[in-house]
Amino acid sequence: MKRNTKVSTAVIRRLPRYYRQLSELQEAGMERISSSALGKSMGLTASQIRQDLFCFGGFGQQGYGYKVDGLKEEIGEILGISRGHTLIVLGAGNLGHALIRNFRFSSNGFHLLAAFDVDPLRVGTAIAGVPVCHADTLEDFIATHPVDVGLLTVPISAAQQMGDRLVNAGVKGIWNFTNYEIVCADPSVAVESVHFSDSLLTLSYLISQREDLEEHP
Amino acid sequence: MKRNTKVSTAVIRRLPRYYRQLSELQEAGMERISSSALGKSMGLTASQIRQDLFCFGGFGQQGYGYKVDGLKEEIGEILGISRGHTLIVLGAGNLGHALIRNFRFSSNGFHLLAAFDVDPLRVGTAIAGVPVCHADTLEDFIATHPVDVGLLTVPISAAQQMGDRLVNAGVKGIWNFTNYEIVCADPSVAVESVHFSDSLLTLSYLISQREDLEEHP
Repeated sequence: MKRNTKVSTAVIRRLPRYYRQLSELQEAGMERISSSALGKSMGLTASQIRQDLFCFGGFGQQGYGYKVDGLKEEIGEILGISRGHTLIVLGAGNLGHALIRNFRFSSNGFHLLAAFDVDPLRVGTAIAGVPVCHADTLEDFIATHPVDVGLLTVPISAAQQMGDRLVNAGVKGIWNFTNYEIVCADPSVAVESVHFSDSLLTLSYLISQREDLEEHP
Repeated sequence: MKRNTKVSTAVIRRLPRYYRQLSELQEAGMERISSSALGKSMGLTASQIRQDLFCFGGFGQQGYGYKVDGLKEEIGEILGISRGHTLIVLGAGNLGHALIRNFRFSSNGFHLLAAFDVDPLRVGTAIAGVPVCHADTLEDFIATHPVDVGLLTVPISAAQQMGDRLVNAGVKGIWNFTNYEIVCADPSVAVESVHFSDSLLTLSYLISQREDLEEHP
């Protein structure tokens, strides 16, 4: 199975959904699934499923469908889950705290190494076993530990500066929760943002549309 | 300006990004912007910008561009920001707590009315002025208060059941942070999910791709 570098962003964004869906099917004890059944469970057509998976070398067999565990494993491989990527958290406030405590980093193939903050009440403590270090020691830490990704939950005013420090220190990716569009000078560093407000405003649009239909059917 | 019901999901998903970008331009004191400059700041082409905005009746003027504040206001109107939508939080654990404390609901046009939990240590307290009620009182609360959206941060095992209760109680939308694909029996209820793992796995894919390029350029 090969990694095709010309895969569209839309297909890439669907891969984690395939992985999640296949994990649920696997937990439910399902051994194989047809492209139409897999599509139905994800709101996609069978032909879209076949096209997506074909981008990565095409698995599945006519009239048989896909083996759930095999397909899950292959997609996990494409996503890099088994590569042992490492991650640090910048900002151990409410959101950083919640992510460290609740998010299953290891299920997604990431080792959470440490958190960084400037608050003297937080520095030196540990959250769910993860040490909270002073942000001043960030560069030293990255120089001595292999850090692939920095998760940013710092205040918006510090977002760009902390992003720059991560890039200069040599991380490969930034997982950005600051609601600020980090500008990254190095195109080889991937920035992936979780914008809560974009999601809530999409919902706002959808319920407004429903309200309009109810008023003027 | 009209709400076109045939707008594609991709365009709808870009509207909050336009709104966010225009808010930043407005704060920076910019009065007008060309479609090419707006596109550049968002990684889109000028023609895509014009097409997107044309879906909603087309603003902007040839050779003049868009008025930043006017366009921001119109997009905000389309998104329903001025409608005074209301929201409750289900689950006041770490993530619910962090969202209540840090997320700017009002900037996105939402009034946060209350939170619900089952933990006796949390019920009866308030988080940033928001009362935490017992989950048993959910239906009574919704019957007596106009609730548009339920934000779900309950454990994954309770996700579907709480989603069903919200739908049965008559909410218009669910903002789902449970990492579980809520199945919604009522198609008129909008479900918008924030899947942290989808975002992290996309980042994992992008950095894995970079690793492969570095190994086999």
